[in-house]
Amino acid sequence: MQKNRVNLKHLSTPCVLVDKDVVKNNCKRMIDRAIELGVNIRPHMKTHKTLEIGQFQVSGLDYSRVIVSTLSEAEFFSSQFKDILYAIPISPNKLTHALFIHSKIDDLHLMIDHRDHIDHLVEHLKNSGDNSNLKKYWSVFLKIDCGYHRAGCQPDSPDTIELVDYITKGRYSHYFKFQGIYTHSGHSYKCQTPKEIEQIAISEATVAGNFGKILKQLGYPCPTVSIGSTPVCSHLPQNLKELGVTEIHPGNYVFYDLMGMELGNCKLSDVGVSVLATVISVYPDRNELLLDSGSLALSSDPGCTHLINRTTPNFGIFADDPNLRLVAVTQEIGKVQSTNQSPIPFEKYPIGSRVKIIPNHSCLTAAMFSNYHVISSKDNYEITTETFVPNKHW
Amino acid sequence: MQKNRVNLKHLSTPCVLVDKDVVKNNCKRMIDRAIELGVNIRPHMKTHKTLEIGQFQVSGLDYSRVIVSTLSEAEFFSSQFKDILYAIPISPNKLTHALFIHSKIDDLHLMIDHRDHIDHLVEHLKNSGDNSNLKKYWSVFLKIDCGYHRAGCQPDSPDTIELVDYITKGRYSHYFKFQGIYTHSGHSYKCQTPKEIEQIAISEATVAGNFGKILKQLGYPCPTVSIGSTPVCSHLPQNLKELGVTEIHPGNYVFYDLMGMELGNCKLSDVGVSVLATVISVYPDRNELLLDSGSLALSSDPGCTHLINRTTPNFGIFADDPNLRLVAVTQEIGKVQSTNQSPIPFEKYPIGSRVKIIPNHSCLTAAMFSNYHVISSKDNYEITTETFVPNKHW
Repeated sequence: MQKNRVNLKHLSTPCVLVDKDVVKNNCKRMIDRAIELGVNIRPHMKTHKTLEIGQFQVSGLDYSRVIVSTLSEAEFFSSQFKDILYAIPISPNKLTHALFIHSKIDDLHLMIDHRDHIDHLVEHLKNSGDNSNLKKYWSVFLKIDCGYHRAGCQPDSPDTIELVDYITKGRYSHYFKFQGIYTHSGHSYKCQTPKEIEQIAISEATVAGNFGKILKQLGYPCPTVSIGSTPVCSHLPQNLKELGVTEIHPGNYVFYDLMGMELGNCKLSDVGVSVLATVISVYPDRNELLLDSGSLALSSDPGCTHLINRTTPNFGIFADDPNLRLVAVTQEIGKVQSTNQSPIPFEKYPIGSRVKIIPNHSCLTAAMFSNYHVISSKDNYEITTETFVPNKHW
Repeated sequence: MQKNRVNLKHLSTPCVLVDKDVVKNNCKRMIDRAIELGVNIRPHMKTHKTLEIGQFQVSGLDYSRVIVSTLSEAEFFSSQFKDILYAIPISPNKLTHALFIHSKIDDLHLMIDHRDHIDHLVEHLKNSGDNSNLKKYWSVFLKIDCGYHRAGCQPDSPDTIELVDYITKGRYSHYFKFQGIYTHSGHSYKCQTPKEIEQIAISEATVAGNFGKILKQLGYPCPTVSIGSTPVCSHLPQNLKELGVTEIHPGNYVFYDLMGMELGNCKLSDVGVSVLATVISVYPDRNELLLDSGSLALSSDPGCTHLINRTTPNFGIFADDPNLRLVAVTQEIGKVQSTNQSPIPFEKYPIGSRVKIIPNHSCLTAAMFSNYHVISSKDNYEITTETFVPNKHW
């Protein structure tokens, strides 16, 4: 964390602003919800990739469990977190790095969903020699598919039970600490309504919880049943624990974004990140503005294109005037039109004026920047006094 | 440029590979074409943002004119290039930086398309005091709209002539060096066929050329008429010079990409950039693979979604097997299916195997990485011996 005091009007644009009050509040609300439901929370670091927000996400918890999406993040966060899940199926080329990080902390958990993953893990330990600085076991989560169909074993397939048997009772079971199961309901981002998200939350919890119960009935360990996605974690059923879930793992909720608003996961006032942009030209003849923020600032994520009530492209909205939206982004330029072609108040947006843009997808937008300017109600959102520096790349 | 010798199989994934032979060839071909047509070439640096490829783009030319898309790039390239156009409408918050760069080189040209731009430029010089290290004039290009409708004045509007009059003969004309006109045919990326791109090339050249001729007939200077976009520059008419064009300004052609292939600007063998990815899981049941390369490696650019003969999503193809394509990208994961659901040859792609992905949009993909691994036919594409480091951010 670097300290400084800069008026927002002196910041170069485009840049990212992070509202510390909102982010802290989002983090606290999710922790409170997990406690209320009697489950652990294992927050994802991938949306922000900063040590500071990572700490907000586990504030007040006895033991911090976190998730990352790259090994570079795992190493970065290992300075402060000792229980880290690398939540992408593990490939053999990443094992030397993974074992190094795993050996520095309590556990770096790896994700597997195929027998070959296990064989690679075994092979690596067999070949890792007598280096006493390195652990002689892996900690693994089994990924199961709860309907998203991106990664994961099928919970109703005999092969899946066989894989658990191999990990926990097979010839090389001494190489493994089996943590249980993990599932991710990415398809919740394709819902039309909060009601549909609630249904996915119940379905994901039921599928994962039931599979955990089956494993236990069959005599296998299954200490953790972890479910997630921010939409689902914003619409969790009250009986989550009874359904068999022990842990939730949301990530995007620290910032939320326009997708979160459109899906009904949050309100505009819950969005903790925006891109500060400058108006670079105005075209009253065609009722359009241009901003200096395009694909490299906001990302090209088109957002909730599946929503039947969204008929026009949308790459972000003005925080102070949601009626104004980016309808197209090119590398360094964003084109702004108004909803329903209502007249843009050009007197409010002369060339050189600054606007805060709520991005479609905060995970991708934040990743475009090498630092975040932190703002807060305490400084009337006029001064930035801190810079958070995210981990970058792989 | 950093020197090393690394076998590609030891590179961490995802990473970017740049084929130096192909890139040099793409650069030479565009230079040759400009010479053949009797026009200057002012290549864009935004696609690669490296000093090395910048030099390939002007190899053999007497005088180097280049374009950039950010002032950060302008400053970066000012170490080697002395005639730089910052090709985004200029906003007043960027003028202190711009004047500093402008004063270090022959000329940093700025882009304007509104009277307010000119007023801001005048105001800035008036207020810049007696600092003898800073120039006392601006060099400007007038952007005109040739049908793309992103930025630019209308060439058929009397206001546009009035603006040129103000710059060249107005009260503050001593503050300006007027370079002429610039237009960008971004709408060429929305064509269905090379024939349609040829039509846009003729139309852009005609609109810009005619406007340049009108300016001269009216007694205004117009030394440069610059047209561009890689699709158009890949389909230029033979009579370009007679149409009134003096300069072309392509950028994407250094790398090309899947969009370039789909639009007919290039062949697969002309694509100079790929993302090296690792297979992280396989799902024969649903005929799918997962890669460790998602939105943060490839970008979320959906590519040529407008093509009527492209019916499925496509975020990249396997360089060695174009039948295999990424149908979805999430933050760190790419999902692969085959065209027409033909069976994926899983024996060729076990977990841990590596594949080169041709991205949809090379400008956005390259920007995702902090360095490029350079490969060449001389090393059989097995060893990387150089790393090019791009300028990043703003």
